[in-house]
Amino acid sequence: MTQQRRTVTVIGAGTIGLGWITLFLGHGMRVRVNSRRPEAPSAVRRGIELFAPHLPEGTGDPDTFDSLLSFEPDLERAVAGADVIVENIPESLELKRELFARIGKAAPADALILSSTSTFGPDDLGTLMADPSRLVVGHPFNPPHVVPLVEIVAGEATAPAAVEEAVAFYREAGRAPVVLRRPIIAFAANRLQSALLRESIHLVREGVVTVQELDEVVTKSIGLRWATTGPFLAFHLGGGEGGLRQWLSTLGSGLEQGWELLGRPPMDEETIATLIAQADDAYGNRSYAELVRARDTRQNAVLRTLTAVNSGQEQAV
Amino acid sequence: MTQQRRTVTVIGAGTIGLGWITLFLGHGMRVRVNSRRPEAPSAVRRGIELFAPHLPEGTGDPDTFDSLLSFEPDLERAVAGADVIVENIPESLELKRELFARIGKAAPADALILSSTSTFGPDDLGTLMADPSRLVVGHPFNPPHVVPLVEIVAGEATAPAAVEEAVAFYREAGRAPVVLRRPIIAFAANRLQSALLRESIHLVREGVVTVQELDEVVTKSIGLRWATTGPFLAFHLGGGEGGLRQWLSTLGSGLEQGWELLGRPPMDEETIATLIAQADDAYGNRSYAELVRARDTRQNAVLRTLTAVNSGQEQAV
Repeated sequence: MTQQRRTVTVIGAGTIGLGWITLFLGHGMRVRVNSRRPEAPSAVRRGIELFAPHLPEGTGDPDTFDSLLSFEPDLERAVAGADVIVENIPESLELKRELFARIGKAAPADALILSSTSTFGPDDLGTLMADPSRLVVGHPFNPPHVVPLVEIVAGEATAPAAVEEAVAFYREAGRAPVVLRRPIIAFAANRLQSALLRESIHLVREGVVTVQELDEVVTKSIGLRWATTGPFLAFHLGGGEGGLRQWLSTLGSGLEQGWELLGRPPMDEETIATLIAQADDAYGNRSYAELVRARDTRQNAVLRTLTAVNSGQEQAV
Repeated sequence: MTQQRRTVTVIGAGTIGLGWITLFLGHGMRVRVNSRRPEAPSAVRRGIELFAPHLPEGTGDPDTFDSLLSFEPDLERAVAGADVIVENIPESLELKRELFARIGKAAPADALILSSTSTFGPDDLGTLMADPSRLVVGHPFNPPHVVPLVEIVAGEATAPAAVEEAVAFYREAGRAPVVLRRPIIAFAANRLQSALLRESIHLVREGVVTVQELDEVVTKSIGLRWATTGPFLAFHLGGGEGGLRQWLSTLGSGLEQGWELLGRPPMDEETIATLIAQADDAYGNRSYAELVRARDTRQNAVLRTLTAVNSGQEQAV
C-alpha cells in the first residue's frame, strides 16, 4: 500500500458504488469497476457526470477521470493486483459471503477488502474466506461522495492493521471515518436516524405537525444544531459553565420521564397512507432530479462553509 | 399593531430573555425590559454586547440599540402601552399563572402576549386571566437570536387571530415559526431531541462509541443532512423516483423491527458518571465562552450559507 497512485476495485455500480467511483476518481485513484451489467460502462459514465459537480472542493478535474477509469466484468481479474477492494452489492448475506470467498482467493494477500454494507459485520461476511483478517466494513451514508461519515466496523477476525489502513484510506478519500468500538446491529448513525424517525412519525400520526412541518421543525432547529455541534457538546454547553455535569444534574432525572412519553407508532396501513399522502402534497410537485440537486447543493454549501470556519478555529468539533 | 416601530416588553433577562432582547433590537423594535434584579441594566447591556455579533445578517447597527432600549422594573408599568409582551421567567407554573393574571389586567386589550415556555400550554398558563384569548406560546430554541425555529402553541382559549399575529411577529424578527396543530407535552423539537439523545446515551453506555465519537457521527452524517433536508424529504429522496411510497414499501416493515432494537438506557449513577467523564475528556480543555463562540460562529455561517443557497433555489425546503 505504498504506491503513489492506488488501484481501487469497486464492485457493484448502483447508487453507492457510483458515489464511491466518482469520489475515488476525484482523489486521483485508479478505479477498476466490476459489474456484470453489460451497460455498466455507459451507466457509470453518466453517473460520474451527474455526481462530479457535487464532489468536495479540491478534488481532481473530471476531464482526467476517464484515464483513471477501467471496467472488468470478471471478478477474479477485477481484484487481481488491486490495492483496495470496495464491495457494494445488494444486502444478501449469501451473495456477499460467496463474493468475499472468491475475492479472498483472487486478490493480493495484502489487499484491503472493504464492504459498504449497512447490515452485516465482517464476521458475518467472511465466514467462507480462508483469511478474513483483511476484511473491514466501511459503511457510508448516501450519497457517499457528499456525506463525510464512514462507520468502520471490525470483527473478531479482523486484523487491527486492516482497521488502521481502512481509516487511512477513507481519510485519503476526504471522508470522516469513525471506528465503532464494538459491533452493534445497524451500526450507530442508522440507529440514531431510526430513533428520530420513530418520533417524527409519531408526531405526524398524532396530528401535531404535517410531514412538511416536521421537516421544517428539524431543519430550522435541531438539524442546524447537529450539523455544527453534536448532541453531547450541545448539552455540555446547555449546562453553562458547569458543563454536562450541571446539565445532567438539573435535567437528568427528567430525561427518563421524557423518554417514557415518546411515541411507539404502529406502521399500519393508515399511518403509511398518511405519510405518503402528505409527502406527495409537500414534495410531489418537484422532480426527483430537481430535489436531489437541491439537497446536494445545500449539503455541499454547508460542508464548504464548515470546512472554512473550522480551519479558522482550532480543532473545532 | 399597526405602528411602524413596535414596543416589545421582554419579561425576564436570563439567557433566553437576553437572546430575544438582542434579536428584537436588531430588528429595530423598541424593547422595554422588565426584570426585578437591580443589576439588570448593566447585565443586559453586557449580554447584548456578547450576542450582537451573532445576530443574523441584515439586522440593525448595535450603536442604535441603546436608543431603543429601556428598563422598567415595575411589571404593570412595563406592560402598559406595549404592543407585544414576551415572558421568559423560570418554569414555575404558579409564578407564570400569577404573572399572566397581572399582565392581563395591565396590558392593552389588543396586546399580543407571548410565553417562551418549553413546558406549558396557554391553557395551563392563562387560568387566572380574565381573557386568555391573546396568550400564545412561542417556544424558541437556545440561543433564540441564532436558531430560527419558534414552535407556536395555541390553547382552547386562544383566539385564531392571536396565533396569526404571533406568526407575523416572529417572522418580522427573522424567525421560522411553526404552528403546532394540537398541543403535545414537550412540543415537537424537544421530543425529537429527546429521542435522539436516548439512543446516543445507549450507544455510549454500550461502549460502541465515546461521547466525542457520537458527536462526530452526528455532525458528519445525519446532522449535516437534517440541517439541509428534513427526515421525511430525506427518505422521500431515499426512495428514488418512487418517493416515500417506494421507500416505505421497501423498508417500511423493517422500520418497526428496527425500533424494537433501540436502547432504553437507565440514567443510573454509572451511566451519568461515564457521560460526564467522557464529556470532560472531550471538551473540558476549552472554556465555555470559547466553545459557545465556536458553536454560534458555525451555526451562523451555516445559516448564512443556507439563506444564500435557498434564495437561489425556488422554495427549497
